[in-house]
Amino acid sequence: MLDLPFLPFCVLLGGLGFVCVAFVSAWCQHWRGGFALDGSAQTFNWHPVLMVTGMVVLYGAAALVYRLPPAWSGPKLPWKVLHGTLALAAFGLAVLGLAAVFRFHNAHGTPNMYSLHSWLGLATVLLFSCQVGAVPAPYAPTSRAPGPHLPSLQWLAGFSAFLLPWAPAWLRGLYKPVHIFFGSTVLMLSVASCISGINEKLFFSLKNGTTDYKHLPAEAVFANTLGLLILLFGVLVLGALARPSWKRPDADSPDSFQVPAPLSGHR
Amino acid sequence: MLDLPFLPFCVLLGGLGFVCVAFVSAWCQHWRGGFALDGSAQTFNWHPVLMVTGMVVLYGAAALVYRLPPAWSGPKLPWKVLHGTLALAAFGLAVLGLAAVFRFHNAHGTPNMYSLHSWLGLATVLLFSCQVGAVPAPYAPTSRAPGPHLPSLQWLAGFSAFLLPWAPAWLRGLYKPVHIFFGSTVLMLSVASCISGINEKLFFSLKNGTTDYKHLPAEAVFANTLGLLILLFGVLVLGALARPSWKRPDADSPDSFQVPAPLSGHR
Repeated sequence: MLDLPFLPFCVLLGGLGFVCVAFVSAWCQHWRGGFALDGSAQTFNWHPVLMVTGMVVLYGAAALVYRLPPAWSGPKLPWKVLHGTLALAAFGLAVLGLAAVFRFHNAHGTPNMYSLHSWLGLATVLLFSCQVGAVPAPYAPTSRAPGPHLPSLQWLAGFSAFLLPWAPAWLRGLYKPVHIFFGSTVLMLSVASCISGINEKLFFSLKNGTTDYKHLPAEAVFANTLGLLILLFGVLVLGALARPSWKRPDADSPDSFQVPAPLSGHR
Repeated sequence: MLDLPFLPFCVLLGGLGFVCVAFVSAWCQHWRGGFALDGSAQTFNWHPVLMVTGMVVLYGAAALVYRLPPAWSGPKLPWKVLHGTLALAAFGLAVLGLAAVFRFHNAHGTPNMYSLHSWLGLATVLLFSCQVGAVPAPYAPTSRAPGPHLPSLQWLAGFSAFLLPWAPAWLRGLYKPVHIFFGSTVLMLSVASCISGINEKLFFSLKNGTTDYKHLPAEAVFANTLGLLILLFGVLVLGALARPSWKRPDADSPDSFQVPAPLSGHR
């Protein structure tokens, strides 16, 4: 579809991701009063910045790790670690982003979780947490997570099981398409959450007669443009994921082992 | 992923689509004052109903036509006609839905096209119109659309060229993945537009002290649920499109001819 090799595409996409983060930061810094941690409106401003950076840009980067040509051959473990690290970083920023908006609401006596944006956003992060949690689940027999079943212990055991080649290939092969499908779904939901969140914030913020949203002041044009850039980023990531020639040659096979070997089960 | 044959899935999806249309109609009828054509708020109410029905439900149905097992063999023309008819019906409803909101805005002196929702929604319909218009473009040599180059003539010529097996297979094969990718993209944008639109409408409508959106009155719960149902419908359609075993066996081959023949170019 795009007659462009993957690496130049990656550079362009990385540039677009950087522009998204720069735009959302500039919006909050220049028009919304900057950043703070005291529960004020400036605390809220961390929410859009962390969500766009985590749930869109870092998440998109994590999704594309296995499309890098160097990941197509040789040991898969380093790429799994990179994929997992980027996804966990995205998840960490998302949790901080949620903490920012809850702290802001609680400091102002505003109810949490009433708007469609908040329902969708929380559903997105919960689905993402299932992804992060469920990746290892089929690979982690309960006997590997003894003692009190703390989520952190289960995750730790699960990640070990996922990252090391302990799980049977058929189980990995069964779970992989589920992980991939819900991976793309979370990105779509993230983009929809960002769009509805930016729209909502502009209606909240641009209310008085001179800067009313409907008169399309500079801030509105800027933040609407940010919304479209986020959308473009999401569509490009999903397009890259769908492009057959950018997939690992063994993408349809059961999950591979770490050491490349002609008889290791690759189709 | 889903261990369900396509036809029962279709019935469930059809039920969900019906529920989406019923929910958006009930919201506008029960809480927003019903429907009219006089430029009042009741004129606006046609907008969500027509957009959800056209750009989500009918559009999703059009996207899935080639996944129906009866479409896998025999003449392809009837399925092309069904796909095109459903897509054109979706497009017609979307145009009427846009007309409803423009008429409402103009009657109240409200500017058009300022919110991110409106930018995204219009971009979605424009991209859809490119899909509808671009389908035939590569198949329609200019010599087949003589005289004044009215879009309608070009479309007519184009559709004839698309529906009849006149275009070379390599040209169809080149354009098909573009059409499929942007087809899924339009559905994603439609869902994001619906989510941001419902969110925006609830903030507009639920403003006074007793029914404020933040107090989550029954209308807010109902419309938020509508948003999540639309999202679920979109994700299920995209999931069905992505499922390899539900694709036409010749899905990756150049577009087929109408008469099935062993030497007709099928791979």
